[in-house]
Amino acid sequence: MFQEKLLNKDTEATRLFALLEELYPICRSITGDGVRKTLRILQEYVPLDIHELPTGTEVFDWTIPKEWNIQEAWIKNSNGDKLIDFRRSNLHVLNYSIPVDKVMALSELKEHLHTLPDQPDLIPHKTSYFKEQWGFCLTHNQFIDLEEGNYHVFIDSTLEDGHMTYGELLIKGTTSDEVLISTHVCHPSLCNDNLSGISVAVHLAQYLLKKQDLRYSYRFLFIPATIGSIAWLAQNEKNVDDIKHGLVLSCLGDRGDTMTYKRSRKGNASIDKLVEQMLDDSDQAYEIREFLPYGYDERQFCSPGFVLPVGLFMRTPFGEFPEYHTSADNLNFIDAEALGESLSMLKKVVYRIEHNRSYQNLKPKGEPNLGKRGLYKLIGGKTDVEISQMAILWVLNLSDGKHSLLDIARRSGITFQAIKQAADALEHANLLKLLS
Amino acid sequence: MFQEKLLNKDTEATRLFALLEELYPICRSITGDGVRKTLRILQEYVPLDIHELPTGTEVFDWTIPKEWNIQEAWIKNSNGDKLIDFRRSNLHVLNYSIPVDKVMALSELKEHLHTLPDQPDLIPHKTSYFKEQWGFCLTHNQFIDLEEGNYHVFIDSTLEDGHMTYGELLIKGTTSDEVLISTHVCHPSLCNDNLSGISVAVHLAQYLLKKQDLRYSYRFLFIPATIGSIAWLAQNEKNVDDIKHGLVLSCLGDRGDTMTYKRSRKGNASIDKLVEQMLDDSDQAYEIREFLPYGYDERQFCSPGFVLPVGLFMRTPFGEFPEYHTSADNLNFIDAEALGESLSMLKKVVYRIEHNRSYQNLKPKGEPNLGKRGLYKLIGGKTDVEISQMAILWVLNLSDGKHSLLDIARRSGITFQAIKQAADALEHANLLKLLS
Amino acid sequence: MFQEKLLNKDTEATRLFALLEELYPICRSITGDGVRKTLRILQEYVPLDIHELPTGTEVFDWTIPKEWNIQEAWIKNSNGDKLIDFRRSNLHVLNYSIPVDKVMALSELKEHLHTLPDQPDLIPHKTSYFKEQWGFCLTHNQFIDLEEGNYHVFIDSTLEDGHMTYGELLIKGTTSDEVLISTHVCHPSLCNDNLSGISVAVHLAQYLLKKQDLRYSYRFLFIPATIGSIAWLAQNEKNVDDIKHGLVLSCLGDRGDTMTYKRSRKGNASIDKLVEQMLDDSDQAYEIREFLPYGYDERQFCSPGFVLPVGLFMRTPFGEFPEYHTSADNLNFIDAEALGESLSMLKKVVYRIEHNRSYQNLKPKGEPNLGKRGLYKLIGGKTDVEISQMAILWVLNLSDGKHSLLDIARRSGITFQAIKQAADALEHANLLKLLS
Repeated sequence: MFQEKLLNKDTEATRLFALLEELYPICRSITGDGVRKTLRILQEYVPLDIHELPTGTEVFDWTIPKEWNIQEAWIKNSNGDKLIDFRRSNLHVLNYSIPVDKVMALSELKEHLHTLPDQPDLIPHKTSYFKEQWGFCLTHNQFIDLEEGNYHVFIDSTLEDGHMTYGELLIKGTTSDEVLISTHVCHPSLCNDNLSGISVAVHLAQYLLKKQDLRYSYRFLFIPATIGSIAWLAQNEKNVDDIKHGLVLSCLGDRGDTMTYKRSRKGNASIDKLVEQMLDDSDQAYEIREFLPYGYDERQFCSPGFVLPVGLFMRTPFGEFPEYHTSADNLNFIDAEALGESLSMLKKVVYRIEHNRSYQNLKPKGEPNLGKRGLYKLIGGKTDVEISQMAILWVLNLSDGKHSLLDIARRSGITFQAIKQAADALEHANLLKLLS
Repeated sequence: MFQEKLLNKDTEATRLFALLEELYPICRSITGDGVRKTLRILQEYVPLDIHELPTGTEVFDWTIPKEWNIQEAWIKNSNGDKLIDFRRSNLHVLNYSIPVDKVMALSELKEHLHTLPDQPDLIPHKTSYFKEQWGFCLTHNQFIDLEEGNYHVFIDSTLEDGHMTYGELLIKGTTSDEVLISTHVCHPSLCNDNLSGISVAVHLAQYLLKKQDLRYSYRFLFIPATIGSIAWLAQNEKNVDDIKHGLVLSCLGDRGDTMTYKRSRKGNASIDKLVEQMLDDSDQAYEIREFLPYGYDERQFCSPGFVLPVGLFMRTPFGEFPEYHTSADNLNFIDAEALGESLSMLKKVVYRIEHNRSYQNLKPKGEPNLGKRGLYKLIGGKTDVEISQMAILWVLNLSDGKHSLLDIARRSGITFQAIKQAADALEHANLLKLLS
Repeated sequence: MFQEKLLNKDTEATRLFALLEELYPICRSITGDGVRKTLRILQEYVPLDIHELPTGTEVFDWTIPKEWNIQEAWIKNSNGDKLIDFRRSNLHVLNYSIPVDKVMALSELKEHLHTLPDQPDLIPHKTSYFKEQWGFCLTHNQFIDLEEGNYHVFIDSTLEDGHMTYGELLIKGTTSDEVLISTHVCHPSLCNDNLSGISVAVHLAQYLLKKQDLRYSYRFLFIPATIGSIAWLAQNEKNVDDIKHGLVLSCLGDRGDTMTYKRSRKGNASIDKLVEQMLDDSDQAYEIREFLPYGYDERQFCSPGFVLPVGLFMRTPFGEFPEYHTSADNLNFIDAEALGESLSMLKKVVYRIEHNRSYQNLKPKGEPNLGKRGLYKLIGGKTDVEISQMAILWVLNLSDGKHSLLDIARRSGITFQAIKQAADALEHANLLKLLS
């Protein structure tokens, strides 16, 4: 069995950040070569399966859209100066823009421009997946500087039948019970949302691939938001009952010092208790939020036709940091150390998932004689009982077939790891029998 | 279906208050012509049935008492000056006093006098329904001024076999499920307790009589307190299971800025949740109180042989304003605007009762594609999601046959009306089916 | 039926304290003549059965240990001065020390000495039940004064096959349902822990022996901690289902002004609610603690093979007063008045246990007519309803077969005694029928 180890933070944090640097320049969308290129890079880390669903495929109430690709895009003034250029930032193009090549007056152009007046130095991230149109995003300061006159707008994009692409990795454990880890890969050059989630998920998968004796199978999804999870659910509808725990990962690299966990729709699923207990054991500040049907793909996994036990794990929640969905969500916004901490916590969640077993106390009538088994201090007196001793007493007292180690940790207020160690010692002393 | 409308407060408040003015001078009791006259005035507003139960009728553990009527009452001093006169205030007579015509010394008279030493300018309201005696109520200042000497006391009342009278109105809806609205009519010239409840109930009945498509039937009772509700329960014992929701109305016209709702004995009946959710949606301060078996007729409806879902709706609770059961609970104590607000809130309760339906999401697997149905904003980006959008997502997520619109409003924290509008839009788009 | 009476505190407190004075000098342990002598003194108060279990008897996972007795023990310096003498304090010997008679250097002696450096004037209480060794306990100041040189150490003890002794008293009531009162008798000269528990238990037993009509049977155990309760459980395994309520008594004589109740493992057993309601009714400050599997014999009674409804009743909890398990837990530490208060509270718990009945309202439809039965004030008006009146209304309202008097007291916030009196009055008026 594997054990929680002290994370070598420097090395791992560095590797987590390096993947962000590699993925940052790519212009992704919900379809197209950006996602493909991203997934191929991830394949260098883990043996990802890449799936392609053709445009027009029906997935529940939805249809796989046309595939979008883009080569070039700019706005030139009448002097031929490129004022806005996709090559400088792929946020400059309204994501999913149809092609255009036209000269027009400023007044007409303005109908296609998107800015953030309150954050005049930042380029917004905007999309138009479900209405065919074109547009540019720019800083409000750039917008203000536009002079009257004619402008040449050029977008060399294609919106044509093709495919939607997503990545999937199943790490098989000794049972068919699954843990789902899902993260969205559709955002262009935005780091916290969601290159952070991608990098943490890939490194968590790497970590699990090295384990020999996983009890659960772990399924990782690297999917476009919304359409990706809906498509995956439609393809895998028959098998979702295998999913016993699940997490959506996002916004895991910012410097916020409070972790945020959004509960599954059930609200008291095992994953909810496991994550909350892990946070409670950590020194980290954290906040628990109730489920609401707005957010990332947990809203699909938690739709009423599925109601899977899937929560959302973040640092600062999406929409609550000013850099969200702007050009300021860049590499500078990310703290490698924060990425490492996020990964470390997820490993601790995995530890709890793997080791949250139930045991039967084999000597349930009175306490067993711990002294003769070397499990009790031998001189009684005034000194406080130690945590490890209390953990042993709690595990014995609650190992009645109705309480898991997680339940015992929660009721006793002792860390899961100490409770697990007590259970191991008691099992070794033939005082406990593993139940399930 | 009817909709909540902005109440024309001025007009309605004026009409509510005018009925108080008309009813104020009448000397009511639990039996007698005062109640009869009151109910006949109410018949000018709504088609009330008037029931008469003869003295001696057994109703559960009780017996309908003798009927009490009074013409005149006074105390004269030895000079023949009328110091106390029933014509000036019908509170001056101990309600249910037997007749008397006697000259007596002050010392003997004092045994029959009731005052409020702490509120020396006010006449108390006192009753003696279950012991045959006579008495006068007066201000403590009047009492102090009484000089030694003989007094002539005269009460021209009758306490004889007759009837107990009460009013009942059933407004039939499309189902036999009933909403009970009960208010007591036995108090003499006291405004907040309970001409306010009577006026609000009558106007609520008027409002409902104009509705074409009520789902529930609404039963209004205008009854003497305690004996009235016990008598009604005894007469209607077989049918009380039709009562799905109920409210006792009282003290609805004072200037207190906090509404008070006292829960039914069950404590978590639908009516409790409906009223509390309505108060939560309002801007009004409010206080929720647990059931206790003291108060108005809810104590009979909530007795252990019935345990009906009946709460008590008030502004300032009875007994907690200094004017309670004194001559200061007069027309000046009443705010017409407050009466209007109380009525307006009850209409909102009715709105919730009528529209608290459950729906089935017809596309429960993942979210349906709202964009193609015009139910979703088309450019994604940074802007906050609107309440109406969140309402749609919540209704879809929780329309699984286990949640009513009220449940959804409570869990989401969104107003009932916004939730209802979302459900209407989704039903219109064939995404929801009405269940019950 | 018996009633709560005002306790004659002076007399009873004096008697409670006198027993502590009598028992204080005795050197007790988990076996041996100290316990025997203690139990024989208790037999002068109540007709205790004294049980003896032979060394080697198997009791669940444990074995009855050898019997320990001690005559004399001292440390002399090379001048022959007795520096440490068991006759001055029986805490000076490590409890369960094997015999020794040896001269040794200070360095070797030090390995057998126990002190409290943070409380340099106090002798610690130390035991070694499960490892055969010898030792002395002394004040840290005595320890510091020891000079280099040789010392003669002498312990005239025996650790041989013999018996473990405990006391038991069953006071039979009219049913076989039992209340268990357990207290440990194994500590040497320590007053609060646990001569206080012993004295209070004996006097509670005396009190109950005088009652004629107890509904419950009361079983008192005076046992060595841990091994005593395990042994008793092993001997009485078949009968423990008769135990409906139970309390372990300890630390009942200190001057702490806050009572402490540690809940049973169930947490919501009747005994938990009964004790908490009693504390709530009292003017005493109190603290409720959740069960944890560390403490006194409640940990055995609440082991997963039994899960009996047994809580722990204390003033200041063990381990939380600085005198705990030191020579300062002496007679000066005890307040006779506190002993009296503790006993008085336990009598109130017994009162609740005996009288926590359920009744059926025989007139459940509406309120019965209380006025005609003299159970209602006869002039209605403004005055507040009295507690006794409210108690009558609550008992009527909740006597539906689902609520006990304890439930009614808890829901109404009225004292148990007032609720009981209301039930008595209503039963006398044929409005209630005793159910169970």
